[in-house]
Amino acid sequence: MTMYEIIQKKRDGYMLDEEEIEFFINGYVRGEIPDYQVSALLMAIFINGMDKSEIPALTLAMARSGDRVDLSSINGIKVDKHSTGGVGDKTTLVVAPIVAACGVPVAKMSGKGLGHTGGTIDKLDSIPGFNTSIPIEDFLSNVRNVGLAIAGQTGNLAPADKKLYALRDVTATVNNTALIASSIMSKKIAAGADAVVLDVKTGDGAFMKTEEEAVNLAKTMIEIGRSVGLNTAALISDMDTPLGYSIGNSLEVIEAIEILKNRGPEDLRAICIELAGMMLYLAKKGTYEACKHMAMQELENGGALKKFKQLIESQGGNSNIIDDYTLFSQPKYSMSFVAKEKGYISKIWTEKLGRAAMTLGAGRATKDSLIDYSAGIILKKKIGDKVETGECIAELYSSIISDFNEAISMLDNVFEITSELLGQRESLIKKVII
Amino acid sequence: MTMYEIIQKKRDGYMLDEEEIEFFINGYVRGEIPDYQVSALLMAIFINGMDKSEIPALTLAMARSGDRVDLSSINGIKVDKHSTGGVGDKTTLVVAPIVAACGVPVAKMSGKGLGHTGGTIDKLDSIPGFNTSIPIEDFLSNVRNVGLAIAGQTGNLAPADKKLYALRDVTATVNNTALIASSIMSKKIAAGADAVVLDVKTGDGAFMKTEEEAVNLAKTMIEIGRSVGLNTAALISDMDTPLGYSIGNSLEVIEAIEILKNRGPEDLRAICIELAGMMLYLAKKGTYEACKHMAMQELENGGALKKFKQLIESQGGNSNIIDDYTLFSQPKYSMSFVAKEKGYISKIWTEKLGRAAMTLGAGRATKDSLIDYSAGIILKKKIGDKVETGECIAELYSSIISDFNEAISMLDNVFEITSELLGQRESLIKKVII
Repeated sequence: MTMYEIIQKKRDGYMLDEEEIEFFINGYVRGEIPDYQVSALLMAIFINGMDKSEIPALTLAMARSGDRVDLSSINGIKVDKHSTGGVGDKTTLVVAPIVAACGVPVAKMSGKGLGHTGGTIDKLDSIPGFNTSIPIEDFLSNVRNVGLAIAGQTGNLAPADKKLYALRDVTATVNNTALIASSIMSKKIAAGADAVVLDVKTGDGAFMKTEEEAVNLAKTMIEIGRSVGLNTAALISDMDTPLGYSIGNSLEVIEAIEILKNRGPEDLRAICIELAGMMLYLAKKGTYEACKHMAMQELENGGALKKFKQLIESQGGNSNIIDDYTLFSQPKYSMSFVAKEKGYISKIWTEKLGRAAMTLGAGRATKDSLIDYSAGIILKKKIGDKVETGECIAELYSSIISDFNEAISMLDNVFEITSELLGQRESLIKKVII
Repeated sequence: MTMYEIIQKKRDGYMLDEEEIEFFINGYVRGEIPDYQVSALLMAIFINGMDKSEIPALTLAMARSGDRVDLSSINGIKVDKHSTGGVGDKTTLVVAPIVAACGVPVAKMSGKGLGHTGGTIDKLDSIPGFNTSIPIEDFLSNVRNVGLAIAGQTGNLAPADKKLYALRDVTATVNNTALIASSIMSKKIAAGADAVVLDVKTGDGAFMKTEEEAVNLAKTMIEIGRSVGLNTAALISDMDTPLGYSIGNSLEVIEAIEILKNRGPEDLRAICIELAGMMLYLAKKGTYEACKHMAMQELENGGALKKFKQLIESQGGNSNIIDDYTLFSQPKYSMSFVAKEKGYISKIWTEKLGRAAMTLGAGRATKDSLIDYSAGIILKKKIGDKVETGECIAELYSSIISDFNEAISMLDNVFEITSELLGQRESLIKKVII
């Protein structure tokens, strides 16, 4: 077997078998197969696709390429959660405490944000003192003692995926269902949970622009999960408009705390209950409806907020931020983006909005960009809202004055204002695949 | 413009414009674009194809990537010739002297053989003393004085093609019409002739296995030629059986000399007259029929043989080999391959036959393999011939005794013998596209 023959086979539209996939993944991780052969294969996979038996084989080969987290010392069914990424998506900060408060252990490894979407680790890093790089022993003992820990991925979890992703990123082979699904699921398998809930975003602010693509990706991941014994369910949710009102790291933590305090925006609350309900359902806590009810109760009775406080303290953070938001690092400047005409907000170009927040310092353009945790955008209006000329649509925050110009000019193309109310917000929960 | 965007465009099936193609070729030659991006693009081109405007743009960008031979100091219309490669193809050794004898200057840069097909340079290198690496000034003055020179390609002719070919060779992106056509034509354009005759081989011993593929490649190259002002014509010829009876470097030179002496096999003579006629026609020496007649005359009256003698002497070779074949280096061993049953030769698997000759030392498995100029195979039987059990089908030559075992076992699968005569040899000249 040679890499040349494997490339040739996929180039001509044939299926690769398990052995061939393992040969290529293991050879690549060991540095025996060069980038230029792998990128040719990736392009052939991108164009010619992979079938239902190839995708799980690729996923497992990547999952086995490095360390795997051993959660066997933790009792109960461990349920993980993954979002494909959106603008203003701070659900993990709410969902994980709810689920832990219901007695289901949450051992969550999260990624950093890249591009126009944020990452859970960056948001938690905005809490003074919070350590997202705790050693694996502390991570496990926190799950055992607190019921909850959230940390960045360790260096050697699915290294094949890491190496492949870096190559896909520079060879225009990222946006392919088989490759995205196997990438996500390989990390979930290596992270050691028994079950996983996937929040697959769709719409302008998501990587999957259409609902059809999102459903296709979700089904592909569910099939992978089931074929390797990882119980998997998926939510298809709208990202044609940001989730909640806040975009930016500490701004999003604050909005999440507001939900945990039974305040905050209804859309964010609704999706958090849905996701928490799904996780509890996979942990066999009852029927899906009963699980959602349980999640709602832990929000209302303060159990989830208490669990969030324990999470912060167990990872070295200052939990006083829950009651005093001024303890977060503060942006040096703010600026209002106002409506140039009166009318109704009928469309928000969400990816561009995410990019504007990134420009202010809230996200990374490249892997090595530094983040300003206090930077970001708070929306004052959302789809369907009425605005008067000169009224504030969004408040911008940054510590670098020169960043405002570019962000403001980006926002000029984000909000569509029409004289009459055109259409309505898409329904937030599009589909539950359980 | 970025390489990423160029890959993305071709990946999605769009056309690249001239600027994008130049950006990628120039960036690659300068080492600014890495192999792994180029191989992803090559695979996208392989699968999604290139259209009629992209192929000439790619060809010209490669032709311009290095030096171009300046033939302006030579009077008359300079006509080049190229064969896509076959087994036993020694036509250049006959055709170039014929054309030069008719007063049309031939400045021929040739490649070395690779794989199962031989190269003109290797064949000439088998003539004692013959120098195929003469400086460009000597090359040009020989064309002016003798009317004929044949040398290896200089180092910096179409370096983009050289670099791309090496990458295609290890990423399974060689066998694609657009890429093959632009590769060949870029070198022809850089070699500076005014017109070119292409001998596109088809059949089992050729790279193009079907006539349809061969015609498609020929038409693509003719279109490229015409769009850049290089007058181009093509012959589609059969390679389902070797050309002539000899395979191997000095063996092929001897067979070519036999033709120049008005002896030798009819098939080889016929294709040489056809190709020489086409070259003379492109040099505007008369109608196509008149040109073929002229070629025949120069064979018959010894003019072509005399020109071949001058070629050898002008490049330092020993022209006594023409009358004394024992002056070539001699193989240490020979062995007969005999028929295991009686019947008719109804099929010769020609690529395998070429590989058997390569195994004996006549060709290169890799770029760095050394060649045994005396090694090779002389067929005693061809398609349609009757054989008796134990009768010799082919004589094998090599100086390494251990090479015979492998070659003999390869030959076991080359000749198909049937009790009745099945079919006949394909017609040699399949199509002239002029």
